[in-house]
Amino acid sequence: MNSFGTRFRVTTFGESHAAAIGCVIDGVPAGLEVNESYIQSEVDKRRPGLSKFATARKESDKVEILSGVFEGVSTGSPIALIIYNENQKSSDYESIKSLFRPSHADFTYFYKYGIRDYRGGGRSSARETAARVAAGAIAKKLLGEFGVQVLSGIFSIGGVEAESLDFDFAKTSEIFALDGAKEEAQKTLILSAKAAHDSIGGCAYVKIINAPIGLGEPLYGKLDAALASALMGINGAKAVEIGEGVNASKLLGSQNNDQMDKEGFLSNHAGGILGGISNGNDIDLKVHFKPTPSIFLEQSTQDTNGECVQFGLKGRHDPCIAVRGSIVANAMSALVVADMLLLNSVSNIGKLKKIYG
Amino acid sequence: MNSFGTRFRVTTFGESHAAAIGCVIDGVPAGLEVNESYIQSEVDKRRPGLSKFATARKESDKVEILSGVFEGVSTGSPIALIIYNENQKSSDYESIKSLFRPSHADFTYFYKYGIRDYRGGGRSSARETAARVAAGAIAKKLLGEFGVQVLSGIFSIGGVEAESLDFDFAKTSEIFALDGAKEEAQKTLILSAKAAHDSIGGCAYVKIINAPIGLGEPLYGKLDAALASALMGINGAKAVEIGEGVNASKLLGSQNNDQMDKEGFLSNHAGGILGGISNGNDIDLKVHFKPTPSIFLEQSTQDTNGECVQFGLKGRHDPCIAVRGSIVANAMSALVVADMLLLNSVSNIGKLKKIYG
Amino acid sequence: MNSFGTRFRVTTFGESHAAAIGCVIDGVPAGLEVNESYIQSEVDKRRPGLSKFATARKESDKVEILSGVFEGVSTGSPIALIIYNENQKSSDYESIKSLFRPSHADFTYFYKYGIRDYRGGGRSSARETAARVAAGAIAKKLLGEFGVQVLSGIFSIGGVEAESLDFDFAKTSEIFALDGAKEEAQKTLILSAKAAHDSIGGCAYVKIINAPIGLGEPLYGKLDAALASALMGINGAKAVEIGEGVNASKLLGSQNNDQMDKEGFLSNHAGGILGGISNGNDIDLKVHFKPTPSIFLEQSTQDTNGECVQFGLKGRHDPCIAVRGSIVANAMSALVVADMLLLNSVSNIGKLKKIYG
Amino acid sequence: MNSFGTRFRVTTFGESHAAAIGCVIDGVPAGLEVNESYIQSEVDKRRPGLSKFATARKESDKVEILSGVFEGVSTGSPIALIIYNENQKSSDYESIKSLFRPSHADFTYFYKYGIRDYRGGGRSSARETAARVAAGAIAKKLLGEFGVQVLSGIFSIGGVEAESLDFDFAKTSEIFALDGAKEEAQKTLILSAKAAHDSIGGCAYVKIINAPIGLGEPLYGKLDAALASALMGINGAKAVEIGEGVNASKLLGSQNNDQMDKEGFLSNHAGGILGGISNGNDIDLKVHFKPTPSIFLEQSTQDTNGECVQFGLKGRHDPCIAVRGSIVANAMSALVVADMLLLNSVSNIGKLKKIYG
Repeated sequence: MNSFGTRFRVTTFGESHAAAIGCVIDGVPAGLEVNESYIQSEVDKRRPGLSKFATARKESDKVEILSGVFEGVSTGSPIALIIYNENQKSSDYESIKSLFRPSHADFTYFYKYGIRDYRGGGRSSARETAARVAAGAIAKKLLGEFGVQVLSGIFSIGGVEAESLDFDFAKTSEIFALDGAKEEAQKTLILSAKAAHDSIGGCAYVKIINAPIGLGEPLYGKLDAALASALMGINGAKAVEIGEGVNASKLLGSQNNDQMDKEGFLSNHAGGILGGISNGNDIDLKVHFKPTPSIFLEQSTQDTNGECVQFGLKGRHDPCIAVRGSIVANAMSALVVADMLLLNSVSNIGKLKKIYG
Repeated sequence: MNSFGTRFRVTTFGESHAAAIGCVIDGVPAGLEVNESYIQSEVDKRRPGLSKFATARKESDKVEILSGVFEGVSTGSPIALIIYNENQKSSDYESIKSLFRPSHADFTYFYKYGIRDYRGGGRSSARETAARVAAGAIAKKLLGEFGVQVLSGIFSIGGVEAESLDFDFAKTSEIFALDGAKEEAQKTLILSAKAAHDSIGGCAYVKIINAPIGLGEPLYGKLDAALASALMGINGAKAVEIGEGVNASKLLGSQNNDQMDKEGFLSNHAGGILGGISNGNDIDLKVHFKPTPSIFLEQSTQDTNGECVQFGLKGRHDPCIAVRGSIVANAMSALVVADMLLLNSVSNIGKLKKIYG
Repeated sequence: MNSFGTRFRVTTFGESHAAAIGCVIDGVPAGLEVNESYIQSEVDKRRPGLSKFATARKESDKVEILSGVFEGVSTGSPIALIIYNENQKSSDYESIKSLFRPSHADFTYFYKYGIRDYRGGGRSSARETAARVAAGAIAKKLLGEFGVQVLSGIFSIGGVEAESLDFDFAKTSEIFALDGAKEEAQKTLILSAKAAHDSIGGCAYVKIINAPIGLGEPLYGKLDAALASALMGINGAKAVEIGEGVNASKLLGSQNNDQMDKEGFLSNHAGGILGGISNGNDIDLKVHFKPTPSIFLEQSTQDTNGECVQFGLKGRHDPCIAVRGSIVANAMSALVVADMLLLNSVSNIGKLKKIYG
Repeated sequence: MNSFGTRFRVTTFGESHAAAIGCVIDGVPAGLEVNESYIQSEVDKRRPGLSKFATARKESDKVEILSGVFEGVSTGSPIALIIYNENQKSSDYESIKSLFRPSHADFTYFYKYGIRDYRGGGRSSARETAARVAAGAIAKKLLGEFGVQVLSGIFSIGGVEAESLDFDFAKTSEIFALDGAKEEAQKTLILSAKAAHDSIGGCAYVKIINAPIGLGEPLYGKLDAALASALMGINGAKAVEIGEGVNASKLLGSQNNDQMDKEGFLSNHAGGILGGISNGNDIDLKVHFKPTPSIFLEQSTQDTNGECVQFGLKGRHDPCIAVRGSIVANAMSALVVADMLLLNSVSNIGKLKKIYG
């Protein structure tokens, strides 16, 4: 249950304050160029401590390849990646050792497992997502061989939504904003929340371009279902939309249908997926993140004995998890699409004949 | 890829115009009372031809148990259920044999598999969901042994939203409306769309009550991720929300956090899930359905040679797939929770000691 | 746990005296010719009641295709096959209802599940293997597209071993004997055991020819490990050998190594598998079956209250399960190789480029 | 495909000359005491360089726990273990860089993946089995909580078989010999082969005691099938026997059946497994290993251009892989049984009621 994917399969390990976090990526086809510097550049995008819009926790997040790569190329053996944790100040967490931070996983982990690694949230910490991003980098490298690209950015912060999507601009924005005209307002909302010892929600957008027709394995391996699982499984995600999304429930069929002409689809309400299978159009995804549950305002909660306690949280936290969450959403989407690319390769006899002659 | 679940695992088969549809349910613990009449009563809820709000296709949808049950009780062996198709008028489909109905899976199946069973949408037909509902009935029977209930209904049609949720009322409503005060307006929207040879979208709500704390297997078997996958995989689903959902992205942490006192949670923005694990609160889900893509208005599309053609669809269709979709959403949610109930049973040594003493 | 395979995945259902047995085959590439008469011809090979060397139970074992095939060709959707049970004389089993037949699964099913379908062994009956053979037929059809053949026969009965392997002869032999010169002696052993109200063990041989190099997914999806699992999972199997098998443990490296020249391997001690991957040579397998546990001699056993009872079994049984077991071994081997053929198709980037251009 | 097990699931990584080997163990119930020194003591049993009966390669094989353990106890999160490779003399392998060592996986890896990490056999090196043993240690710790023990030793070397099984003696023997009376002869065979620049085969025995009744998930998760897969998947394994094994194919039913009295089974030809489920008796397994393919005698083989070459291998090798293989067989068996222990915990409603009240 700590593995993701079927044929491009990632198993992650590690906790916020364990010796290390990392992953094992199984199913990378042999012959793919894999190097640490590229993976590092992807991991650096979600690295903490880079701006006032992210947690101040300092981690170099240095990725090392342990296996599966020989002379710069994947060998078909599992690729293990490791990031050692440096900033392990367990003492910071004495104060929360015996209570449940509101809207955190502390409560549920304690009762499910009967034991809790309370240091920084343990396994439930978003720190684990660095391993996802590292794995996603390799997925994107594979996708790149076939022209597929996974783009992403921030669509909205606290209800302030982008009106246009500029994925190039997002790369340069400290908050990965998609709409330069809205970036300032979005930043202001984050900093205001932070200043008020509060936090704020937001929405990330992922667009996958050039995905070939045919990705997705109906009926229980549908591309949209897999993407929904991937995105809803990110820390703090509370809603996922594909294509027209929530709005589709408000439309008439004549408004929502994507008609075609000889050149292809005349619109893309579907968000690139029909019957759980990619149709060659852009795949459009939104994932909505709740505000960071870690806030400094005094709150009421239970301790591990079931008693009610008031407390004020301390520490270092992202004021808006959507920002770095957008990088994770990008990586998770890439993992899904890479997996589907492999799965789709045996959908009909014609493809097998290309391979086995 | 036609199986769903890990330990409570359902494999479905069948197409709209195959000899039969059905499923094999693997992992049902031995000793559960299972009888055809109960399963039938669940399947009847989504049976076509019952009202003017659903397709006029006539099917008795009679479920038979083929295996896995002995003297009315599950034996631990796989339970196979079958529903023979009766209404197989393939001739109806000659007209769409060589073209792709807009916003249907015709296009993607054709290009993925190189062959398409065009009769009624083949495998991509919502007819398959009868098997899901049958399987869901057994899941709900299992959950019932532990007091867990899965409730559902229609939250909105075409933007007309319920303001209160009455799951008892929904059971008696032809459209499973959750709010009696909105039912008439919602019905009117459906019938107006139908009269205009069009269709309309809608949103179903699922509420799971009495789920024990601890369901969900982090990090890639999270309860919310599994539910998102289950719901997004239903025909026509375009968005899934959990708890506060989309709205969470607009809130401050101080607004969205669920504080606790000695008695438990003081609010439920989380929708009953923290860190991917159930927290004992109600689990609240919304799934948004697009309008039925099958409409009778003339549309432009491609044929299988890539040429553009105009055509007007004929046949029998649901004017609003959300209505019967809500029954499927209920069943899929039950399947997820039943699976998680089994998975959670070995989360710690204490539980194992209860079993192996 | 009632599914077998990863990408060519078979889920079986049914018990000896359920309404039906059958299977769902998921992952058959679209475009494969599939017809009932071919499947029937394979199933007929293990049909009971055909000779004095098999049980006298009469079953027509008529296979029906329920789904996944359109106009004689697989569509990529799951193929469901069903065989209705005809010979359901439950009354035959009143005498064993409350006791455990020695060396049968009665004892273990009772204590594992707390309930037992005692009719004919329920799920543990070899009757279920008809579904495996039906699924195996489709696997063999797929393999045939690529020139791969799965041959089989009886190697030994009660220690009387074949000295040569003639797979064509085996097809015509009532006991599938591989060595015409030993057939009579082997038959005599079976009939003598039968006449003495006893049973006898035997060994089946499977040879797979023309398998391409590269099948097998190390390290935990090795071809030999998968074959061992497939064969050891057949009712009554107690040992599996690959290539030199048990004898390899008695040899020197210089005796067991397969040297090569320009044309290829100079010997085949390996049985066609190196490092868990096919090397292009014949794949040679032996599976050893225990004697049928159902014998008519009086035996001592426990009843379901734990009391010791003496009893004499009645009914219809195979005097030597290896005979029909060899057909099952053939089918199971085919399922493994078909699965590996699909899995191997994405082992390197070069193959993916052939598919996705 | 580099993962093993369903609920107690091990994913390994690493090659002979990668930076490290290791594993991620997913599904360890929370609350299990886990410490490095115990794991180390198990890993030390198969450590190279300890005697003249094993390879002279020097590795300290120091195991580190990276995650999943907090204050000495498992938390329910994945446990990652790592062993850094120290003895990475890649230069040793220049001579075999472009040829295929006979009866090694060099040939098959090259053609499957199109690229080969030739250093020490890469992923196909038995070095990876250190990770299996480390994982097996944790499995044995879990089993120990329930009184289950996994014993092992060498049954035969080059055909010289044990006549009695003394698992305590095996622990003290340099070759893990089960029969003290045969140890010397077995050692002599190994040293003679070594002196002749050759190698020799052997057979390991595993006995599992105190396994509860009910382990094994029929029909495709049978205990015997899973054990066969686990053992046949070990480097160099060519045959697996359970209970009476090969010999069962030579017996009459009256000889092979295990009758019962009030106290239980009167014999154990079954090797503790009936219908794929443990029956409470000892589980008896044999795995036959081929002689080490690495021998120093001159041999004929192909190079990567398909040309025939003569060559004499150099380096450090085990003269008999069965010896250290017996430790791996022990570990793999433990992994299977631990997995089955978890899987069996939901076989019937009664067990679930113990957990969920």
